[in-house]
Amino acid sequence: MTDATTDTAGTVDTAGTVHVEGRILEPGRPGGTGEGPEAADILASTRKLVDPELRRAIETLPGSLRRVALYHFGWEYADGTPAAGSAGKAIRPALVLTAARALGGDPAGAVRAAAAVELVHNFTLLHDDVMDRDTTRRHRPTAWTVFGDADAILTGDALQALAQRMLAEDPHPGAPAAAARLAGCVMELCAGQHADCALERRGPDEVTLDECLATAEAKTGALLGCACALGAVYAGAELDEVDSLDGFGREAGLAFQLIDDVIGIWGDPHRTGKPAGADLAARKKSLPVVAALASGTPAAAELAELYDRPPGGTESAPEHAARAALAVERAGGRDWAQAHAADRMSRAIGQLAVAVPDPEAAGGLLALAEFVTRRTY
Amino acid sequence: MTDATTDTAGTVDTAGTVHVEGRILEPGRPGGTGEGPEAADILASTRKLVDPELRRAIETLPGSLRRVALYHFGWEYADGTPAAGSAGKAIRPALVLTAARALGGDPAGAVRAAAAVELVHNFTLLHDDVMDRDTTRRHRPTAWTVFGDADAILTGDALQALAQRMLAEDPHPGAPAAAARLAGCVMELCAGQHADCALERRGPDEVTLDECLATAEAKTGALLGCACALGAVYAGAELDEVDSLDGFGREAGLAFQLIDDVIGIWGDPHRTGKPAGADLAARKKSLPVVAALASGTPAAAELAELYDRPPGGTESAPEHAARAALAVERAGGRDWAQAHAADRMSRAIGQLAVAVPDPEAAGGLLALAEFVTRRTY
Repeated sequence: MTDATTDTAGTVDTAGTVHVEGRILEPGRPGGTGEGPEAADILASTRKLVDPELRRAIETLPGSLRRVALYHFGWEYADGTPAAGSAGKAIRPALVLTAARALGGDPAGAVRAAAAVELVHNFTLLHDDVMDRDTTRRHRPTAWTVFGDADAILTGDALQALAQRMLAEDPHPGAPAAAARLAGCVMELCAGQHADCALERRGPDEVTLDECLATAEAKTGALLGCACALGAVYAGAELDEVDSLDGFGREAGLAFQLIDDVIGIWGDPHRTGKPAGADLAARKKSLPVVAALASGTPAAAELAELYDRPPGGTESAPEHAARAALAVERAGGRDWAQAHAADRMSRAIGQLAVAVPDPEAAGGLLALAEFVTRRTY
Repeated sequence: MTDATTDTAGTVDTAGTVHVEGRILEPGRPGGTGEGPEAADILASTRKLVDPELRRAIETLPGSLRRVALYHFGWEYADGTPAAGSAGKAIRPALVLTAARALGGDPAGAVRAAAAVELVHNFTLLHDDVMDRDTTRRHRPTAWTVFGDADAILTGDALQALAQRMLAEDPHPGAPAAAARLAGCVMELCAGQHADCALERRGPDEVTLDECLATAEAKTGALLGCACALGAVYAGAELDEVDSLDGFGREAGLAFQLIDDVIGIWGDPHRTGKPAGADLAARKKSLPVVAALASGTPAAAELAELYDRPPGGTESAPEHAARAALAVERAGGRDWAQAHAADRMSRAIGQLAVAVPDPEAAGGLLALAEFVTRRTY
């Protein structure tokens, strides 16, 4: 489980470069095919198409909630003055549009579906931050810390409704199926967040890696899968193609979560927007940590002891986090996470090949999947 | 404003019987037409049609959230054993089905819309109870007190999604318009709850009656209006008929809220399921209270002084509540609320007559509207 070199799907070298099935995915390089669209271009053109739709939708919210939403999206400061902040990387809407294109659809026709997915994503962020008491998101104080729990909950509720209204008002023939699929996904996201909260309440030795992977699939994989599926639905794809694209997004989503967890421990705070070692200081049972705890190594025992220690002892928080990070690494948690991310990417590519056999048509989705798993940190 | 005898639309006598435009609405008697369906029969047959659909839908929730939902609906105890509790009076689904029938539609064809409205209602109850820290609902501890804030929030989120999935999967030609209307209504409900929280944070002298009425319309009237509108949409009605029925439900909803507020002060705790005087003990700015405070009477000054007093003084809570209730009554708050409820009922009947000119066809909706405003207490 902690062997990073013999994974069936891929390996990760010491520089953090992911090797998948003989292809080398390096940071800053185009997707594995060596040609095709750059993920950065796809994301930029997605923002250009989807942002106006998103902003138009948010402008229709009642004033009190619109203010919270505009703050959360980074478009306004807390006092209501305009801000030029970033509302995230638009990976989910990019997956919708790119999946539509990959299956022969018109991406411009799927803009509302893309915006709806982004609204759902942000509704869950608003609510999760309340439940998890997370104080920082996208380098800024979370909405509940600024406006209070009630306004963050209500704005999340309204964003979910806005997403569904957008699809209900879309005359596209795929809209009802997309709305049903998105609603089903919300239920899975809620179950994932519930499982995550439950895992966090349990002791480090009472949590299995399988449980954590299932939770990550529901909490993160489900919406990336749904984004791809919605693109396929809007392209008029058959149900089995839609389901394969859902599988592609889910597997890529798990790879994304694994890398995100790695970044959560060893990432640069200036890039992550969170304090260094915040996940470890909060005793978060992220995937590398749980893999490390399950490794049966002496470092695992040290990590368990560090996690059992309540915060606020004689050791400073950064010292504690640094020791915990070293223990996770020595127990093989970092290597396992990177190898498992490569494994999931390999499975994702397999699902993609089923739905979109033509490598050229699949290039955009592949570039996006690789982008999220080769983020530099 | 506090004159209970000269209201343009109706009067309330000392026995609490509401007189609307010459017709007398007495507790326990059929609706004002003297014939037509009994509200109790409509509610019972609604439960029979809609409950199986609701339960089927809730069974599809992920296990962790299903348990919270089944508890909230009164169908299970907290430990998961079956309970025969009541999931409320089904007024909203009854309005959907009865509106569909009134406009010549088949009520059986609108069952999903009725269930969707009831799911949305319960989603907002789950979330509002968290925000308001309300501990009792339908004679039982609220879900958040049993399962925690996170599970109550997540179950509410999932119920909203379930409502939308139900409409998205409904092949009825009215389903997309109904879904859009229901989503828009959720946004209004959220704005109403936001306004309500904001009003509760302000001092008793900083709140106007108009603000409170607008808040009650958004928080309560909107969903009753939406229920009627969805029935009309499912009957294939024209937009102006749909809007008139929305107006009917809104006005009846405000009448309902006014009577509910009266019951919240003078109601029998065995019937309301809340401790006597709980609204007054919590210094709640309900409509009769705000009307009383605005009356300029000596009793208003006494009430303001009682509301300014922090809870937990030398006086017991029941003593304080009893004095406050008397002050509201002396300041005319009770009479005003009953007269204004009659006024709203009169406006509701006016809107109903526009959409459904045939009194026989309108009988069911009228009976339901009168039922909610002649609840005994």
